[in-house]
Amino acid sequence: MKNYCFGVDIGGTSVKLGLFTIQGELLEKWEIKTRKDNSGAYIIGDIATSIQNKMKERKLTIDDVLGAGMGVPGPVMENGTVSVCVNLGWVNKKPAEELSALLGVPVKCSNDANSAAYGEMWIGGGKGYSDVVAITLGTGVGGGVILDGKIVAGNRGLGGELGHIVVNPNEKDICNCGNKGCLEQYASATGVVRVAKQKLRASNMPSVLRGKESHLSAKMVFDAAKIGDELALEAVDQLGYYLGLAMSFVTLTIDPDVFVIGGGVSKAGGILLQVIVKYYEKFTILSPTRAKIALAQLGNDAGIYGAARMALE
Amino acid sequence: MKNYCFGVDIGGTSVKLGLFTIQGELLEKWEIKTRKDNSGAYIIGDIATSIQNKMKERKLTIDDVLGAGMGVPGPVMENGTVSVCVNLGWVNKKPAEELSALLGVPVKCSNDANSAAYGEMWIGGGKGYSDVVAITLGTGVGGGVILDGKIVAGNRGLGGELGHIVVNPNEKDICNCGNKGCLEQYASATGVVRVAKQKLRASNMPSVLRGKESHLSAKMVFDAAKIGDELALEAVDQLGYYLGLAMSFVTLTIDPDVFVIGGGVSKAGGILLQVIVKYYEKFTILSPTRAKIALAQLGNDAGIYGAARMALE
Repeated sequence: MKNYCFGVDIGGTSVKLGLFTIQGELLEKWEIKTRKDNSGAYIIGDIATSIQNKMKERKLTIDDVLGAGMGVPGPVMENGTVSVCVNLGWVNKKPAEELSALLGVPVKCSNDANSAAYGEMWIGGGKGYSDVVAITLGTGVGGGVILDGKIVAGNRGLGGELGHIVVNPNEKDICNCGNKGCLEQYASATGVVRVAKQKLRASNMPSVLRGKESHLSAKMVFDAAKIGDELALEAVDQLGYYLGLAMSFVTLTIDPDVFVIGGGVSKAGGILLQVIVKYYEKFTILSPTRAKIALAQLGNDAGIYGAARMALE
Repeated sequence: MKNYCFGVDIGGTSVKLGLFTIQGELLEKWEIKTRKDNSGAYIIGDIATSIQNKMKERKLTIDDVLGAGMGVPGPVMENGTVSVCVNLGWVNKKPAEELSALLGVPVKCSNDANSAAYGEMWIGGGKGYSDVVAITLGTGVGGGVILDGKIVAGNRGLGGELGHIVVNPNEKDICNCGNKGCLEQYASATGVVRVAKQKLRASNMPSVLRGKESHLSAKMVFDAAKIGDELALEAVDQLGYYLGLAMSFVTLTIDPDVFVIGGGVSKAGGILLQVIVKYYEKFTILSPTRAKIALAQLGNDAGIYGAARMALE
């Protein structure tokens, strides 16, 4: 009986792996190093070895394993090809095909943000819904779009690239992508710190954040906002303004059931949800009811959950 | 053999009907008046009578007809219910169910913008693609989103409501929907006239449009732009700017194969495509290739084509 599957989440420094039951129970998770030398040529082999070792340890054979899924930190085309993955050094690779050949079980592959979205739909903040948009507020802003239970990757892998929606065409600073005014410049951990620093420089408004510019973090900005620091509240408000605006764009395009907000910044919790809802409603007045907005529940494990879920397809 | 289907496009003043072969050939089209009295209670009955008369005239029986599709000028929920359709006076109606009961053949129903998008995918500017976004630049701005060959209506019917994406949160004028800065305020026929009038008021820039404010039309603005009138060019540029921006939002959400631009404004042709492409590329730099941008080909018949296509599902 094929009662088990593996979920793999490849990151720039480590690969997370998980052994799951096909009902979605995470039995064990572990990590291996991401070997990026030689254009990332060893990564898939390392993953295969690690999974095979785990199978031996658990006394599992190929007959017990339904398959594996894999999240990749870059765009994956619909046919499974990764044209370029800067973070891993890959060029024109078919990672799922390679891993499947090594393991002898079916392997699916997707972009890591989509994979995390899939995980949240399966077991997390989007459970019970089939039209789910996951937004990850971390160092950058990632997104995953799921419609009718299926990941919308798009032909060029641009589906769910919400972090680079231009929400403020008047912005002067340049985003990592080369454009100006991307959502990521306001709503990521880096973004909310950038905005807070700008505000510290631009006025003499008193703030508990003054003097801490050199080591300012998103958590510090949210903590200050929670105790009513006005400057911090303004930075948080700007995050909510642009994120709510972007979510209204998404709603007026595909009208999802639920937005699941994850990533480091989402640990801020209630204060974050409140400011997002405020602007999301302001910009989406066409309908009296709108999508639910929920916090992600799987944290850093969303990627392996989603990857495992892909294996069940 | 069920070789025929009917496409119905209900508008506020008239209902367009078409008899099609199931291969997509339009054999005949005609119109009837939209009787809105008594909360639109007669509309479905009138449509049924008109189709039955046409069947008699053509010597067709129920055994020849695969079914019918219907586009409705308002949101249609996934279960086929129309909660409110202001344009027709309908409240809590199931139009497809009603028409099907009268005709004795299966009937499908969708929002008219989605239906037009479906038509353009079948036989028009989006032919050969399965991920199509149709944008109709008419009195307002309508949109239809098709992924994997299926209309994305959304649970609240907000899918494809691109005209009410807020592209300029700093706008002072109010949109019909009550918000400020909607795409419709710049990119519809009404919108481009509004912007041109604003520019005429705001400066003394010479323009062939001066003195024509009282009867200005979108065609006049585009015609002036084509002969190099600078003020008209600015209005057209602003249309392209906001439409290109909105199309980049859509691309970074679902990454479609093709955008099909239709409606009265699209008759401007090349000059319109040029300015849209310019800004669409500016705001979508994440990928070296982007969606194709094509002009709609079915004109006012897109709705009946798309409705007929629905009948084949």
